Amino acid sequence: MPLFRSLAVIGPGLIGSSVLRRGKEMGTLADTLIAADISPAVLDRVRELGFADVVTDDMALAAQADCVMICVPVGAVEATARAILPHMRPGAILTDVASVRGKLGPTIQALLPAGVDYVPGHPMAGTEHSGPDAGFATLFENRWSLLVPPEGANELAIGKIQKLWELCGARTKILPDDKHDRICAMVSHLPHLLAFTICDTADNLSEEIRAAVLDYAASGFRDFTRIAASDPVMWRDIFIANKDVLLETLDRFVADAQGMAQAIRAGDEDAITSRIERGRAIRRTLIENRQA
Amino acid sequence: MPLFRSLAVIGPGLIGSSVLRRGKEMGTLADTLIAADISPAVLDRVRELGFADVVTDDMALAAQADCVMICVPVGAVEATARAILPHMRPGAILTDVASVRGKLGPTIQALLPAGVDYVPGHPMAGTEHSGPDAGFATLFENRWSLLVPPEGANELAIGKIQKLWELCGARTKILPDDKHDRICAMVSHLPHLLAFTICDTADNLSEEIRAAVLDYAASGFRDFTRIAASDPVMWRDIFIANKDVLLETLDRFVADAQGMAQAIRAGDEDAITSRIERGRAIRRTLIENRQA
Repeated sequence: MPLFRSLAVIGPGLIGSSVLRRGKEMGTLADTLIAADISPAVLDRVRELGFADVVTDDMALAAQADCVMICVPVGAVEATARAILPHMRPGAILTDVASVRGKLGPTIQALLPAGVDYVPGHPMAGTEHSGPDAGFATLFENRWSLLVPPEGANELAIGKIQKLWELCGARTKILPDDKHDRICAMVSHLPHLLAFTICDTADNLSEEIRAAVLDYAASGFRDFTRIAASDPVMWRDIFIANKDVLLETLDRFVADAQGMAQAIRAGDEDAITSRIERGRAIRRTLIENRQA
Repeated sequence: MPLFRSLAVIGPGLIGSSVLRRGKEMGTLADTLIAADISPAVLDRVRELGFADVVTDDMALAAQADCVMICVPVGAVEATARAILPHMRPGAILTDVASVRGKLGPTIQALLPAGVDYVPGHPMAGTEHSGPDAGFATLFENRWSLLVPPEGANELAIGKIQKLWELCGARTKILPDDKHDRICAMVSHLPHLLAFTICDTADNLSEEIRAAVLDYAASGFRDFTRIAASDPVMWRDIFIANKDVLLETLDRFVADAQGMAQAIRAGDEDAITSRIERGRAIRRTLIENRQA
């Protein structure tokens, strides 16, 4: 028997369409897979791709599902939840995949109708592509999905969302909101900010150097631009949503970069090498943890 | 007929052993391939790997070749050239693969014995691995090799080194030293400095967060650590050799990062998106130029 009778994904983009594709392929997520969006173009494409049983722009209809998963950009999660929640049925579970928690947990918790549980999660998976065409059924395999249920959340509902991600191939872990946001600032938000910025810096160079940079992009720069190819609106929302923690992490990074600059300026070979070696230690541990 | 009667590589590491492997496979680089190094362990390994006809620790012997290619870390190029040059024969060519030019060109030019030409190049290729085991014959295929001959260098010698890199599969371009160093600061040295630093920043976090970062390393951070796995001594030398240009490029980057931080702090959505979009434009051009 599938985990849910019906599962509705609001916003079938990279993440949402991957969940639906997984559900379609395995048959174990829900009897009925629902894709809901406000964009007619997205809905047309989802119909063509054929990974949902019901394709609708009617949020009140989608809200009838046993499990409603909000997969819209971080900045739109709260508004979407406000539109969905009044139509949800007792016993149903609301979840989302917002990659920054901020005050989202307690805010949405306070809006829940009686009998509805809220168990958000953050699947740490993705590519630089977006939209319903970008998803694939194996996107979450061997990735982490971090669950961030509000305090006092229903254990049964937590178990069901945990199971949902496990059926998608992911490992799960339960974390408090603030720890989640500090970790993600370091492993994901700061790297993206730096990647966007280095492309911006290259773009600001003189025309002659800029043209040459484009001709000779070596591996270092090329890897950064791949990260920087990600969706601008999604990342703008993430940066704003995790502003305090992200800016604090950036400050630490800039201080470390200036420490390295100072060592280079002074030609202090030992200081430079020891900073480089510390980075390599992290890399080695990642390889041992099979994350690299 | 091969390009040279004999080609000596001083320092058969990632780059040098790849040139020798290419020469062994194609047979078009030289009749006799010579590998020279001061490390007995390296020489033993090179003998086992079998990609050179002559394996020696005798620099005066290696210096007898028609073409001598110095493939040691940037900081050791000048000293190696000083040891080699007195033994070189008229009509021979000295080259190197130093990835920072600085004052190397005019310095070595001034030391040349009569009849010896100096045509250095910088193959923009590599991996995060090093040593004679790390090389492979196709490393330079479809990569750029930037030639930086000193002013007034012999056109015939330039043509031969150009041909050498083309036989290795690379495209070549002739550039002045200072432009070379500004381009490489942007496309290679700064990305590596940032990658080392972000690993350092992660390493400096509290034990609890650091452990979690290692558990949940998402794609952004993981990509940085791959760059940061490169050889510390090589990068230390590069950073010091290109100090002035690199630190100036880093200053621009930090200013751009602080501009982004300011936009995030202010919640200025348009400013954030326009910075992200500029980065994406660079990415698109790279894809058009088939560099991504």
